[in-house]
Amino acid sequence: MKSSAMRDLMAVTARPEVISLAGGLPDTSSFPPETFAAIAQRIARESCAKALQYGPTEGLAETKDCIAQVMQADGGMRIDPDHLIVTTGGQQVIDLVTKTLIDPGDVIVAEAPTYPGAVPTFSSYEADVVQIDMDSDGMRIDLLEERLAELEREGRRPKFIYTVPSFQNPAGVTMSLERRRRLVELAAEREILVLEDNPYGLLRYEGQPLPPLYALDGGVYVMYLGTFSKILSPGIRLGWVAAPAPVLEKINLGKQAADLCTSTLSQLMVQAYFEESRWHDYVESLTEIYRARRDTMLDALAEFFPPEAEWTRPAGGLFIWATLPDYIDTTDLLARALRDNVAFVPGEAAYLDGRGRNAMRLNFSASDEESIREGIRRIGKVVAEQVALYGTLTGRPAPRPAAAPEARPAVPGEAQVVPLRRRKAQ
Amino acid sequence: MKSSAMRDLMAVTARPEVISLAGGLPDTSSFPPETFAAIAQRIARESCAKALQYGPTEGLAETKDCIAQVMQADGGMRIDPDHLIVTTGGQQVIDLVTKTLIDPGDVIVAEAPTYPGAVPTFSSYEADVVQIDMDSDGMRIDLLEERLAELEREGRRPKFIYTVPSFQNPAGVTMSLERRRRLVELAAEREILVLEDNPYGLLRYEGQPLPPLYALDGGVYVMYLGTFSKILSPGIRLGWVAAPAPVLEKINLGKQAADLCTSTLSQLMVQAYFEESRWHDYVESLTEIYRARRDTMLDALAEFFPPEAEWTRPAGGLFIWATLPDYIDTTDLLARALRDNVAFVPGEAAYLDGRGRNAMRLNFSASDEESIREGIRRIGKVVAEQVALYGTLTGRPAPRPAAAPEARPAVPGEAQVVPLRRRKAQ
Repeated sequence: MKSSAMRDLMAVTARPEVISLAGGLPDTSSFPPETFAAIAQRIARESCAKALQYGPTEGLAETKDCIAQVMQADGGMRIDPDHLIVTTGGQQVIDLVTKTLIDPGDVIVAEAPTYPGAVPTFSSYEADVVQIDMDSDGMRIDLLEERLAELEREGRRPKFIYTVPSFQNPAGVTMSLERRRRLVELAAEREILVLEDNPYGLLRYEGQPLPPLYALDGGVYVMYLGTFSKILSPGIRLGWVAAPAPVLEKINLGKQAADLCTSTLSQLMVQAYFEESRWHDYVESLTEIYRARRDTMLDALAEFFPPEAEWTRPAGGLFIWATLPDYIDTTDLLARALRDNVAFVPGEAAYLDGRGRNAMRLNFSASDEESIREGIRRIGKVVAEQVALYGTLTGRPAPRPAAAPEARPAVPGEAQVVPLRRRKAQ
Repeated sequence: MKSSAMRDLMAVTARPEVISLAGGLPDTSSFPPETFAAIAQRIARESCAKALQYGPTEGLAETKDCIAQVMQADGGMRIDPDHLIVTTGGQQVIDLVTKTLIDPGDVIVAEAPTYPGAVPTFSSYEADVVQIDMDSDGMRIDLLEERLAELEREGRRPKFIYTVPSFQNPAGVTMSLERRRRLVELAAEREILVLEDNPYGLLRYEGQPLPPLYALDGGVYVMYLGTFSKILSPGIRLGWVAAPAPVLEKINLGKQAADLCTSTLSQLMVQAYFEESRWHDYVESLTEIYRARRDTMLDALAEFFPPEAEWTRPAGGLFIWATLPDYIDTTDLLARALRDNVAFVPGEAAYLDGRGRNAMRLNFSASDEESIREGIRRIGKVVAEQVALYGTLTGRPAPRPAAAPEARPAVPGEAQVVPLRRRKAQ
């Protein structure tokens, strides 16, 4: 899917009559305006001239302290502020890491599907992106090992492995502890950098937290991307990257050339927020809201999607990934769905190789429960129409969906993907 | 000068005991904290959830309205909001335009000296930067024409011409109306894009405003870079670009991949500011402050710099460019000056070809008048020491400075640069 098509999609979904399950927007209406007012008053009183001034490229020390608190809360990561650069959102980290490490033709390993926002970035630096299939335990590390061995035989070494291990965007799956350990070992054995993208780590709705790759590796081969976008606000454009010193130095130079420094206003807003308010409580309140919306979406999928569809059951984050029979093209389906005023992200946006045409990403954080139910009902209707049309045209029952992230290998470590039974809300 | 050295410089100048004439910082302490508080209250009341949310990549319509007002005030530029993208500061415009238009080895034409912040950006995309000398009337368009003809004979065509026509950074000179007209004609004749970087247009301390290139050309070949950094705040990281539709479309895709969108908080801060307050009045107050500081710096230069030095006399903006005898290396001189707790930007930071070693950029917007006088006194002292040392070592009187931006050709259009008499504050 072309980026321009993606942008058109975003423009259409801005229309108020459209129920958009397409974006990755948090629910900022849940943030108390009185807290915003209190934070701003504190800045006006204590640091107005500083908030309006340029800051150092690497970010303010006081903001890095807040980042250290967030990392501590998320799997007990410990971070030296000197190993951090504050960035203009998490997206800038992907851009700067790619800019720093990739020459045209260099290999990046990513998940299949991968974060749709990384696709144009990787493409813009002409990276050769190798996508590794997932199942319900995240990236298939056995397939990764096979692929790395293959690449080695071709004399190629990935510049880095890009992964969203927790509540993956778009698939909603989470990498198991065993695989996390193995991935970190593999990175060390083969001396390959890993970029761990972890925007949703604190948004867990069930089960026990798993250690981030960065905690397991200690920051030797693992670079870490964090962001305030999903725990506070994406509108302030505040993220960060932790990386080994030689890489961080290059990222710093890249950032200087890209935008000089990150918004000082945003950085001091975060500092004032952490002093003014209990940020954990707000994250906890988001968790309650999103858990209920996830459950509503899972229930609606079970009620309105035809039996030929499958989907993931995320334990956190913002997204569910649905896979339809492979005769359905979700980009075509979207055009039909938009006529019914509902939107999703077609699966091909999450691939660089044209796969994903029968899949879709569904967001449950940005809409209230009633809209989610109604949105899924409308999408279910157009899917059912397509399924019925296929039956009419071929006289055959609809085939099962193609292998999808929720597929789990019958034998761990086995290369072939064996699809699971259709997973319904439990 | 390496970017890392530049960054070290910025770190050193953050020490409170150092008088820094190195940065390009506006005086944000002059912004009324009560205005900041009022703006923030308005957002808390009216648009808190929106300010914290993602926005469209191209920027908010309400912010574009403010931009249209600024462009109208600056030489009567008229802009269709659809021809604009709001960016993360002006620096991002340079980055995105370069990313969009340049493949390794492509030619960019820039002024000699050019904006030091553009140097690492142009380098990072491996552009071949051709720098055209200036005099007190800005870029020597006659030399530009010669160089374009030369390039044409080599079968090369610049992808764009980068210029800061008003109160140039770092040279402080302003392109004359005649040259502006000729540059715009030339761009049309040869079908070459121009990137007009105009951060200081409204900061004029004397004389009549000149039309921006964008106003003369109507946006056909001229792309326009604007920013709120110098008329409101650099800490909010808010700039914009106007460009022809096909270029703007690519810039938009580039921005999406780079940081998704510009801070919504910053965009709504500007909107609230334009509604809450008379922004012209604040710019007017800045003009008063900076004019006095410029005059103080010019007086101090006349008093403390040795007769072997020359400098420009800017009619606006933030910078004076001083040229010393060519046996003085200002990067070495800076190390000596820092021991006396004063800093400037060595001239070579403004060149991609190693020139500028005997020049320095001096900022007069960020320090109060007392600090400016004391800073220039300290720099003058180390310059005088170097001049005296040269005399002692060679037994000869110090030679005159090499050709510098303030040099004006005896005959307009003549290719050879004839240095003017030393220019003192008048």
